[in-house]
Amino acid sequence: MKKVFLNDSEIPTRWYNVLADLPSPMSPPLHPATGQPVGPDDLAPVFPMNLIEQEVSTERWIDIPEAVLDKYLLWRPSPLCRAENFEKLLDAPVKIFYKNEGVSPPGSHKPNTAVAQAYYNKAFGVKRLSTETGAGQWGSALSMACQMFGLECRVFMVKVSYQQKPFRGLMMAVWGANCIPSPSDQTHAGRKILSEHPDSPGSLGIAISEAIEDAVGDPDARYSLGSVLNHVLLHQTVIGLEAQKQLKKVGIYPDVVIGCAGGGSNFGGLCLPFVRDKINGKEISVVAAEPTSCPTMTKGPYAYDFGDTAQTTPLLAMYTLGHDFVPAPIHAGGLRYHGMAPIISHLVKEQIVEPRAYDQIQTFEAGINWARSEGFIPAPETNHAIAAVVDEAQRAREEGKEKVILFNWSGHGVVDLAAYDAYLSGKLIKYEMPEEDITRALKAIEGLPKP
Amino acid sequence: MKKVFLNDSEIPTRWYNVLADLPSPMSPPLHPATGQPVGPDDLAPVFPMNLIEQEVSTERWIDIPEAVLDKYLLWRPSPLCRAENFEKLLDAPVKIFYKNEGVSPPGSHKPNTAVAQAYYNKAFGVKRLSTETGAGQWGSALSMACQMFGLECRVFMVKVSYQQKPFRGLMMAVWGANCIPSPSDQTHAGRKILSEHPDSPGSLGIAISEAIEDAVGDPDARYSLGSVLNHVLLHQTVIGLEAQKQLKKVGIYPDVVIGCAGGGSNFGGLCLPFVRDKINGKEISVVAAEPTSCPTMTKGPYAYDFGDTAQTTPLLAMYTLGHDFVPAPIHAGGLRYHGMAPIISHLVKEQIVEPRAYDQIQTFEAGINWARSEGFIPAPETNHAIAAVVDEAQRAREEGKEKVILFNWSGHGVVDLAAYDAYLSGKLIKYEMPEEDITRALKAIEGLPKP
Repeated sequence: MKKVFLNDSEIPTRWYNVLADLPSPMSPPLHPATGQPVGPDDLAPVFPMNLIEQEVSTERWIDIPEAVLDKYLLWRPSPLCRAENFEKLLDAPVKIFYKNEGVSPPGSHKPNTAVAQAYYNKAFGVKRLSTETGAGQWGSALSMACQMFGLECRVFMVKVSYQQKPFRGLMMAVWGANCIPSPSDQTHAGRKILSEHPDSPGSLGIAISEAIEDAVGDPDARYSLGSVLNHVLLHQTVIGLEAQKQLKKVGIYPDVVIGCAGGGSNFGGLCLPFVRDKINGKEISVVAAEPTSCPTMTKGPYAYDFGDTAQTTPLLAMYTLGHDFVPAPIHAGGLRYHGMAPIISHLVKEQIVEPRAYDQIQTFEAGINWARSEGFIPAPETNHAIAAVVDEAQRAREEGKEKVILFNWSGHGVVDLAAYDAYLSGKLIKYEMPEEDITRALKAIEGLPKP
Repeated sequence: MKKVFLNDSEIPTRWYNVLADLPSPMSPPLHPATGQPVGPDDLAPVFPMNLIEQEVSTERWIDIPEAVLDKYLLWRPSPLCRAENFEKLLDAPVKIFYKNEGVSPPGSHKPNTAVAQAYYNKAFGVKRLSTETGAGQWGSALSMACQMFGLECRVFMVKVSYQQKPFRGLMMAVWGANCIPSPSDQTHAGRKILSEHPDSPGSLGIAISEAIEDAVGDPDARYSLGSVLNHVLLHQTVIGLEAQKQLKKVGIYPDVVIGCAGGGSNFGGLCLPFVRDKINGKEISVVAAEPTSCPTMTKGPYAYDFGDTAQTTPLLAMYTLGHDFVPAPIHAGGLRYHGMAPIISHLVKEQIVEPRAYDQIQTFEAGINWARSEGFIPAPETNHAIAAVVDEAQRAREEGKEKVILFNWSGHGVVDLAAYDAYLSGKLIKYEMPEEDITRALKAIEGLPKP
């Protein structure tokens, strides 16, 4: 058995909401001015009300709308594959299964929530979505989704990525979106930066500020976020729910479930349905892999912090390296975020999820070995999950214990080959976050409420 | 129904050899010096004997070796999908099905034969394969296959493509191959060109000459070709055989089968099993889509001609624009070949296959509409097949006749986005081959034997 497919009729028809099963309540998002929990009305200029309701829902199961399922079926259910060649290479007593989310049109898990968000915005009467993107995975996914539901789409892309990764911008153009290098002259925030630093390479923080300003200033527009928030992780649970059905078909249950985590959405998408099993008594390890250069969960404090550099978002209770953190320029743009989804942060704090950090050299080594044995070239983000699989296999070998590992192959690296080139030509260096950065992080959250 | 999957156990275990069913015999390849049919010994320095035997076999079914099936299963059976959104857009009485060959690691149908060729060479004791590549689809597929079977791989890539499409060369490096811009200083042929034209951008003809010279000069090496030859088309029939199983599952048989054709391998791979049905009496149209700028089958004579510019190959009986033909620089590198597979040429001559030519503007328009409705971005080559689907839908609308169309979605265009950019920014122009080129083509084959 190398692959388990599900037929169209077997696709999950409901998302799973872990909020219904948490052993302890989460700390709510706070309004930075009042220190009080934010209400739906605070968020109404930013998100449509149907998504705000989903953000705070504690219903265990939420129906996936027919129109969203219809788009999912263009590429979902994604295959569950067994990595027999990689197993042979590792020579450890492990069986390795992975969900191949690289089969979607933009090549990652991102459209699972992009399609849902485009649908809900359209249903609410929104005409245009605005968002930011770093490496471009999210921006391209939302471009496709907006095209499919007849929404305009504007993507503020970090300028240095826009220049270094022209293919992502071109992909957005093919799907009819308007991709703007950020900082831009389209917003007050962008113009301010440009007047002070005309050559600014941009940052995710600046791009978020531009996208929010652009959306909030137009009653027909809303803002869209590709990770971190509860409703985003909710939409991604289709991955884990499919995996559970597929594993059941072959009578297997995993000992370890692994995902890489930047904002937490692909990780949550695969793992949350298994977290439910763990809460209900199953013995299972749930491992989140992050970069040593941006070690949010392994080094950061659990605290209230802003989601963006410009301090425009509500305060979120999460592991954070401080909203002013500037991560090292590693080649996994999707993992360079100072915070972590509040749901995932809560599960780490409750010791239900175990975080581990891997260095980029180690991750590319794992990714090259993967590509040379299993064929598919993984995204640099995904290489972190593969490094954790290698680590887990090593532990199984040492313990002499047989293990079934399941991980999320969150996307392909076909548009990220320059990063592989850097690795193969010995240009990558090992990044560890300096210890003094913890002092800076603590300073950044000083004076903010505590969870 | 949007997709039909086959389980691992349902993958075809034999390739289909159309030579067993042809209504009239094919004209054999000739030795250019003697004008006599080439024998196995003539080809022995170039190909391993097990592939030479396959090239001339007339057995109807040839078993797929276990080790090849094992690699196929990394991504095969590929999904058969129904393009309901594209159907809606066309608003014609058609049902459109497509085989998604873009799901393979290099993103096209090419590994179907690359894996088989690497296996047979390895089994024969070969240690290294040498090949040429234009746009890079073939070179990257063979790189992956060689890595999987422990063979060294050297790819001579047309220099201008090497420079314009760095991602393809990087992909080959990830899979451990040595990609060399051609003309190079590694061969006599390359050095000769460089001494006369130091700035030569290269051509497929030069790259073929380099690859053959490189292989023939080393007893441990052989040459590998990604299209045109009988054994290459044989390996690709796994596509059509899967499609037949999948269509049977949903109780459907197509009225029209379509593929784009450059050398003929993806076209043959899907269509040959249906050609068998047609020979046995089924009413079905089989349409080969080629570019108006390289109209081999629609404008060229059926004649004996060389497979390469440097006149090093045997003479093949085929439709040809002359071995000295330099096609216009359209953005579908895989379709810029002066000849056509002898099998496909024979079927066109026998009026079993109907060729049609489409302009690149028309093909990109079709491709953009596809990406915006079905999500997946097609390769520029694949866009020719989609243009033929649009054409066929238009005919069905005019005739008021319901039709089931099946076509080969031969690969994704994620590494070809610069071509889409050129289209979207209005930089593409319409290319028709000038009529006087037919005179030149006839001159190129003057004096050669006639089939």
